[in-house]
Amino acid sequence: MIVGVPRESYPGERRVALVPAVLANLAKAGIEVTIEAGAGAAAGYPDAEYSEKGAKIVGTRAEVFAAAEIVVQVLCHGSNDRTGKADLSLLRPGQILVGFLRPLGALETLTEVASTAVTSFAVELMPRTTRAQSMDALSSMGTICGYKAVVMAADTLPRIFPMLTTAAGTITPGRVLIIGAGVAGLQAIATARRLGAVASAYDMRPAAKEQVQSLGGRFVELPIEAKDAQDARGYGTAQGEEFYRKQRELLGDAVAAND
Amino acid sequence: MIVGVPRESYPGERRVALVPAVLANLAKAGIEVTIEAGAGAAAGYPDAEYSEKGAKIVGTRAEVFAAAEIVVQVLCHGSNDRTGKADLSLLRPGQILVGFLRPLGALETLTEVASTAVTSFAVELMPRTTRAQSMDALSSMGTICGYKAVVMAADTLPRIFPMLTTAAGTITPGRVLIIGAGVAGLQAIATARRLGAVASAYDMRPAAKEQVQSLGGRFVELPIEAKDAQDARGYGTAQGEEFYRKQRELLGDAVAAND
Repeated sequence: MIVGVPRESYPGERRVALVPAVLANLAKAGIEVTIEAGAGAAAGYPDAEYSEKGAKIVGTRAEVFAAAEIVVQVLCHGSNDRTGKADLSLLRPGQILVGFLRPLGALETLTEVASTAVTSFAVELMPRTTRAQSMDALSSMGTICGYKAVVMAADTLPRIFPMLTTAAGTITPGRVLIIGAGVAGLQAIATARRLGAVASAYDMRPAAKEQVQSLGGRFVELPIEAKDAQDARGYGTAQGEEFYRKQRELLGDAVAAND
Repeated sequence: MIVGVPRESYPGERRVALVPAVLANLAKAGIEVTIEAGAGAAAGYPDAEYSEKGAKIVGTRAEVFAAAEIVVQVLCHGSNDRTGKADLSLLRPGQILVGFLRPLGALETLTEVASTAVTSFAVELMPRTTRAQSMDALSSMGTICGYKAVVMAADTLPRIFPMLTTAAGTITPGRVLIIGAGVAGLQAIATARRLGAVASAYDMRPAAKEQVQSLGGRFVELPIEAKDAQDARGYGTAQGEEFYRKQRELLGDAVAAND
């Protein structure tokens, strides 16, 4: 069985679908890996690290798709609206495609993927269960997003996050508002608090309140109620237009009160 | 007595020498303030905030210098090698100039300032004593520098600072090396640690060891000894060329071991 790893083609995408560290485990399972030259370079993994661990490096994208029975990508066509289309002609019936496919947001592109008769797996749809935990691709990305968003905000804000009390006076801490307290939001709260800011967070799911507070964040409550705000998997559910309009209006005050 | 605040002219400099909040105190002491239009804008203080508190806004830099008996600047000619020279013709004998003058690093420009017969005060030379604490201009800037340096590093580094232990594996914490453990260095250690990194710091003053460790930092010791490393005010003293050469050589290993 050959797994193929093409270089990511979306502009600015630096991730790679397979890192050299997992090759040994794949080899044990009888899986060979063919990787496009330079696929891991932007992520800090030069070709040599892949070939040392037994991967075959090939020069072109077409060779990867031709050799592979399973193609693994970070951004497949569905979640890569800029350059993803070019991969369609390389896919063949029966081939397996694994990656972020944006199954709920890119129906047209997904239909195109389906028309190539590949079997595709969207990692976003992995259920949030204990058994699927090792395949979870959303939590890790959410964690990085929440952390990075706050670091970027701290670098951009023309003031500092921590409170300073000095002989010359006191600087009040930065006030950070986080909208949405899922994996990314909670990590953002934790990071903002670590840097010394006062963090507030809003989420329409009442269950998020305790989570926000456990991290030392203030929970922003709006006088509107979401219907069945949370589904069985813990995700927020879609609400009507009227709800979102009111939500935006009420959030305005919270936004204004923060830096 | 009139205090004049010209707009900072150094490219990218966003600070302003006087903020509106201090005007009330100055007025009590019988001091009037004349400020160049837009001087505080980049720092977040529009002209209106100054005029509300009684300052006089004037349109040109020349008017500020002409009216003022005391000129306060963040970067005077000595510390502003790009555009500072233009101020020389505006200074007059007996006028008082207060600001960062870079007295030890810009002898030539300082001689030029002196030749205008102004009386100048370099805020960098303020002694580190309890009585002078309210005039301390270095600690506050050092604190901001240390904080900002780490935030910028965190934003630039292609990995994250905190350790993450998840079902998918563990990410080790970032390793941050800080050279110099004065006010800026200590703040940098604190900020890096807050973000979850492992922080190491080097300083040639043995007294810095305890300070670094009190913040949870590792102290990097090099097998070279500085002669009288610290002066009476707590600053590091200048060492010979041979010391610095050895220091750079030995620090190489510490640099290599960090992110």
